[in-house]
Amino acid sequence: MSILRKDPLSNGWVIVTPDRGLRPSDFGSVESTKKGGFCPFCPGNEGKTPPEIYAFREAGSKVNQPGWWVRTIPNKFAVLRTEGELQRRGQGIYDLMNGVGAHEIVVESTNHDANLDTIGTHQVEEIIRMHVDRMTKLRGDSRFRYIQIFKNHGAAAGANLDHPHSQIIALPITPRWVKEELNCASLHYQRKERCLFCDILNEEMEEGERIVFQNEHFVAFAPFASKFPFETWILPKEHCANFHTIRDELIKPFAECVRTTLSMLFSTLQDPPFNFLVHTAPVYYKKANYWKTIEDDYHWHMEIIPRLTKVAGFEWGTGFYINPTLPEDAARYLREGTR
Amino acid sequence: MSILRKDPLSNGWVIVTPDRGLRPSDFGSVESTKKGGFCPFCPGNEGKTPPEIYAFREAGSKVNQPGWWVRTIPNKFAVLRTEGELQRRGQGIYDLMNGVGAHEIVVESTNHDANLDTIGTHQVEEIIRMHVDRMTKLRGDSRFRYIQIFKNHGAAAGANLDHPHSQIIALPITPRWVKEELNCASLHYQRKERCLFCDILNEEMEEGERIVFQNEHFVAFAPFASKFPFETWILPKEHCANFHTIRDELIKPFAECVRTTLSMLFSTLQDPPFNFLVHTAPVYYKKANYWKTIEDDYHWHMEIIPRLTKVAGFEWGTGFYINPTLPEDAARYLREGTR
Repeated sequence: MSILRKDPLSNGWVIVTPDRGLRPSDFGSVESTKKGGFCPFCPGNEGKTPPEIYAFREAGSKVNQPGWWVRTIPNKFAVLRTEGELQRRGQGIYDLMNGVGAHEIVVESTNHDANLDTIGTHQVEEIIRMHVDRMTKLRGDSRFRYIQIFKNHGAAAGANLDHPHSQIIALPITPRWVKEELNCASLHYQRKERCLFCDILNEEMEEGERIVFQNEHFVAFAPFASKFPFETWILPKEHCANFHTIRDELIKPFAECVRTTLSMLFSTLQDPPFNFLVHTAPVYYKKANYWKTIEDDYHWHMEIIPRLTKVAGFEWGTGFYINPTLPEDAARYLREGTR
Repeated sequence: MSILRKDPLSNGWVIVTPDRGLRPSDFGSVESTKKGGFCPFCPGNEGKTPPEIYAFREAGSKVNQPGWWVRTIPNKFAVLRTEGELQRRGQGIYDLMNGVGAHEIVVESTNHDANLDTIGTHQVEEIIRMHVDRMTKLRGDSRFRYIQIFKNHGAAAGANLDHPHSQIIALPITPRWVKEELNCASLHYQRKERCLFCDILNEEMEEGERIVFQNEHFVAFAPFASKFPFETWILPKEHCANFHTIRDELIKPFAECVRTTLSMLFSTLQDPPFNFLVHTAPVYYKKANYWKTIEDDYHWHMEIIPRLTKVAGFEWGTGFYINPTLPEDAARYLREGTR
C-alpha cells in the first residue's frame, strides 16, 4: 500500500510507493525502454495484463481477447489503489493518508510501433473518447478530487514500455500546480470578470508569433513564458472549464490539432521524448465555496512538453526555469518544419 | 541578453536565454559529460576562463595564475548578466524584465577528479567560506533579491564539466519555491510563535528514524515527505535564517556534516548524480513588510537530491511527486552503508 505524505514546507503531497522494496543497488541508470521482447500491450497478450476496465472493441469480440482498438486496464504497478479508505491522519507534526486512488493505462493502438502522429486522426479521436469516458466515470467516485491524464513517450520522458499508451491517475487531493492555476485564474476573474485563459488566447491570436497550429475550434501555441524549449499548449477556443464535458462535435477538431501538433514536433525535433498532460477543473466539491465560480474562470487545456534539456539544481532549488529557446523561435521552427 | 518572463498561470518566472541561437537539431541526447580533453577549470588554464572574481590563493601568487585552492569566476555561459538595468515592463497582458543578475562558478578544487567526499573536511570548509563570502558580496547589490547556491554533479544532474564546481546565481526576483517555504514558515510562526524548521528538527531528533548523520551543530535527515529517493537535508540545530551569517565556528561542523553525508550517499549509491542547493532568507528589502519577521520564522538549510529516478508527465502535470523509497528506509540504508 502506498502512502500520501504532505510536505509541511510547500503544502505539496508526495506518493511514497515502497511496495517494490527497491534496494540502493536497484537504482541503475536505465536509459532506454526495453527494445524487442515481450509486450503485454500487444494484441494476443491481453491475459498478461490485469483484467480490462473498458475497451472499444469489435461487435462480438470478447473481453480480454483481441478485437479492441483502444483498451483501458489497471496499471500493474499502480502508484495508487482503488481499495480502501483514505484515513486522513496526523503523525507528530506531519500529515498523511493512505494511497487510495486509481491508476489506469490506456493502450492507444494495437500497433506496437505506432506513434500518435501517424495513426490517423480517427484513432486519436477514439483515444480522446476513451479519456473522456474514463474521466467521467472516475469523477463519480466521491473519494477523488482530481483526475490527471498524461502520456510519457520515450525513456527520457519516463516511459518504461514502447507500445503507445497514456495513463490516468485519480487523486484524493487537487494537486498544487492545478491549484496554482486555479488561484491565478480566479484572481484574474475577480479583477476583470474574464477568463485568464480566454485573455491569453485572444492575445496569442492577435500577436500570432507564437501560434503553432490552429483550426476552427482549437489553437496550439508556444506559451509566452515556456518553461521548456518547444513547449506547446492546446486550448479550445470556446470557453470550457471541464475536459470531460467537451462537446461531441469538438472531439474531431481536437484530435486533428493534437495529431498535427505532434507531427510538427516529431518532424522538427526527430521523434523527441515528450510528455503531454491535460489540465482540467477539479471534481466538483459541493462544500467548497472555493470552486463555485470554476465554470467561469477555468479553461481546460493540454500541455505538450518535449524533454530536450536536463532539469538541474537551479531549477529544483528555485522553480525558476531556464529555457534556451525563445518561444517565438520555437513556434516558427515548428510552423516551417525547420530542423 | 536573456529575458525574464512571467508565467501568468503560476506567477513563476522563466529565464529565456536565446543567445546561443540553438536550432532544433542542436538538441541531441548528450548523456554524459566530456571525458578527458581540455578542462578550463584545471590549474594552468586560468587564462581560458573569464577573469577571476575572487580566489583563496597562496601569498605571493598572482591573480588568474595557479596558486589558488578555491577560485570563483563568472560563468562563461551565464544565464544572467550583471550589466544593465532590469526595465520591468509589460507586453500586452504579459510581464517581463531584462536578464540582469549574476552567474558565478566556484571551482572547488585544483584536482580535476576530486569529489567532495574525498577532498577532506578542511577543503569543504574553504568552499563554504567562499560561498559565504560571495553571498555576502552579492547581497550588497540592490538589484538582487535572492542568491541561489547550487551544485550539479554528474551529467544526469545537469553538469557539463567533470571538474568539481558549484554555482551561484543572483536573481532580481525571489523564486516561487523559496516564497512557498517562506509562506508556510510564516503561517506556522503566526499560529505557534515557533519556527517551523525548528519544530521539524525537534520531531526528527525525537523520532530518530530518518536521521542520517548528526554532530553537535548540524543534522542530516531524510525529510518525511521526500520528493526523491535518498533526498537528504542538512539543517543547523541553532535557529538561523541567513546562511551568510553562519558563525565562524560553525563552518567546520557544517563542512563535516556535508562531507560525511555525501560520503554516505556516494558509498551507498555508488557515485550517484546529485544536486545540492542552499535555501536561505531572501535579501532584506526594507519596503516589504512581508519579510519583517523573517529572522524568526525562516531557517537556512541545504537540500541534497540524488538524481536516481526520472521525472515523468504526472509530476510535471501536478507537482505531485512519486518516491519509490520510504525515507525511513533511505536513512537506514545510508546509516548502515547498505547497497
